[in-house]
Amino acid sequence: MDTVTALNKFRQQVEMFVPLNETEWQVLMPLLELIALKKKQNFIEPGMIANHIGLVVKGSVRYFYVKDGEEITNYFSFENEFVSSYKSFLTRQPCSNYIQTLEDTLIVVLNYSNLQLLYANPLIGHKMERFGRLVAEFYLLCYEDRMSSFVTQTPEERYNQLLETGGEVLQRIPQHYIANFLGITPVSLSRIRRRIMKISA
Amino acid sequence: MDTVTALNKFRQQVEMFVPLNETEWQVLMPLLELIALKKKQNFIEPGMIANHIGLVVKGSVRYFYVKDGEEITNYFSFENEFVSSYKSFLTRQPCSNYIQTLEDTLIVVLNYSNLQLLYANPLIGHKMERFGRLVAEFYLLCYEDRMSSFVTQTPEERYNQLLETGGEVLQRIPQHYIANFLGITPVSLSRIRRRIMKISA
Repeated sequence: MDTVTALNKFRQQVEMFVPLNETEWQVLMPLLELIALKKKQNFIEPGMIANHIGLVVKGSVRYFYVKDGEEITNYFSFENEFVSSYKSFLTRQPCSNYIQTLEDTLIVVLNYSNLQLLYANPLIGHKMERFGRLVAEFYLLCYEDRMSSFVTQTPEERYNQLLETGGEVLQRIPQHYIANFLGITPVSLSRIRRRIMKISA
Repeated sequence: MDTVTALNKFRQQVEMFVPLNETEWQVLMPLLELIALKKKQNFIEPGMIANHIGLVVKGSVRYFYVKDGEEITNYFSFENEFVSSYKSFLTRQPCSNYIQTLEDTLIVVLNYSNLQLLYANPLIGHKMERFGRLVAEFYLLCYEDRMSSFVTQTPEERYNQLLETGGEVLQRIPQHYIANFLGITPVSLSRIRRRIMKISA
């Protein structure tokens, strides 16, 4: 994918939230960068301050913690989804998790200080603040759903919902990452999968 | 608490995120309302579209779902915390949960259409968008922490963290609501509490 196509994907994604006229795009566009990462490369590591907010334009990433020497997968971002260790990005504190590519991945990024300049820019600031608000609200809803699922659903119900919403994507993710994401052991996930297969057979 | 004190508490809370000058406050203030609820009254019920975003200025509320006839507690808001069924408020779809007071409670509210007017107002819109963004980001971080805790912490670690961060507040909440909030049974919570008491004895 060439840089122009990648940047245009970023524009399209921004325009899902706020329309941009040509002048506004010409303010935003020069501040964007394209980062190419190989499979299993880290976009973010513990101890770093997340300096970029990005949009995955190709590939996918996995968010995980390491606890007692074990990787605990917490989240994924796929094509046309934003990616950042938001807490670190927003609070300017070192992050405690990894964000690592699951495959060769292209990410269009905007750095923290440039984003603050955009928010304060009289030409585009009101619109960029709106964009920032709508993105934060969008992820708030995603997180709210995920958080509710931990207290209102059984692991089997969570897995079924994941099958419904992320069918194609699931095939690209190793099973033990999915088990982690659901908050269960790989053995429990195998049991759930066997049960579902029996029901649908 | 009189209305002026209540509205000023709202202003203070907004100013934690963005400073307001007197002109801006005079635009915002007339759009606020004060709602007084008795203990165990519903602020929101399933099927309603959440029409207000509010600030608890006195008292506390509990968020819960009813599943198979049982209440499942998902969240709490206390004094100086915002309260809404955000998903319903933002998407204009009926909500699926209750928000119910734990005690006599006062909430300063702003309704959805007035908030949209504020966002679009040339005098105060840029600042209100910033306020909306910062609040959404703030809750994004709270949710991120809570979400991580479900995959990275044991129930006992979650309870210990709750003890550290919300000590005084915990004493106002019945134990079975806390068990729910931690995603465990009341019996498991009792076991954890006994274990902790033994360690500290």
